[in-house]
Amino acid sequence: MLKARIGGVGGILKTLFHITYWEYSWINSVLQGKAAFEQEPFEAHRSLRQVRDLSIQLHAEVEPFVTSWTSEMERNELTILRDNGEWITYKHGEIMRHVIAHEIHHIGQLSVWAREIGREPITANLLRRGLFD
Amino acid sequence: MLKARIGGVGGILKTLFHITYWEYSWINSVLQGKAAFEQEPFEAHRSLRQVRDLSIQLHAEVEPFVTSWTSEMERNELTILRDNGEWITYKHGEIMRHVIAHEIHHIGQLSVWAREIGREPITANLLRRGLFD
Repeated sequence: MLKARIGGVGGILKTLFHITYWEYSWINSVLQGKAAFEQEPFEAHRSLRQVRDLSIQLHAEVEPFVTSWTSEMERNELTILRDNGEWITYKHGEIMRHVIAHEIHHIGQLSVWAREIGREPITANLLRRGLFD
Repeated sequence: MLKARIGGVGGILKTLFHITYWEYSWINSVLQGKAAFEQEPFEAHRSLRQVRDLSIQLHAEVEPFVTSWTSEMERNELTILRDNGEWITYKHGEIMRHVIAHEIHHIGQLSVWAREIGREPITANLLRRGLFD
């Protein structure tokens, strides 16, 4: 879980923490302007149990926004100051897709590491998951 | 490139072939009912050059459908017979999202293997890529 691995953010538990942190940050802080996640460092979450608890907690705060998403929200705009000093305007739909792609990308990395420790990865299949129900 | 690796479909070149093959199969054969890709086996594409050439060729056949995609096409339906003998109806939007998620997932795996051979992976970032231009 804590073993340093090549690629990504460097390990299984770190990746789970990283996904949880960024999902919350993009959806609650960036898109909704809510208070930033008080970034307890990764070092405060050094067990699967702790990261899972954090994920459950933050997921509950993110869920209402995601489940109430409508296609009219796609083109809402958000202007932010980038680290390089440049102002940039994003569409909300662009940010939501980035969050989704970001998570799938890391799940791909986790799938390799899962096999390395002899565990079956979770499926990457999107079909028959009720996406259009 | 051909080295057997743990996870995914088992290696870098195999993954590139796999992405190319399935993108074409879903979009051209399944969604548009065109002739199936005559599956030359992976063994016929044992160099990066060969897989790249195949990708360029099949990409050209897939591109018109993707670039002419409209939101009205999301709910078009497709009924197919699954391997298990069950008939199932998919929405076109569900299939397109599956194809996208499938590729991002494998790119995540490739990113780990790229680092293993000391190469920088391509970015997984979707922002500022002109998604909403």
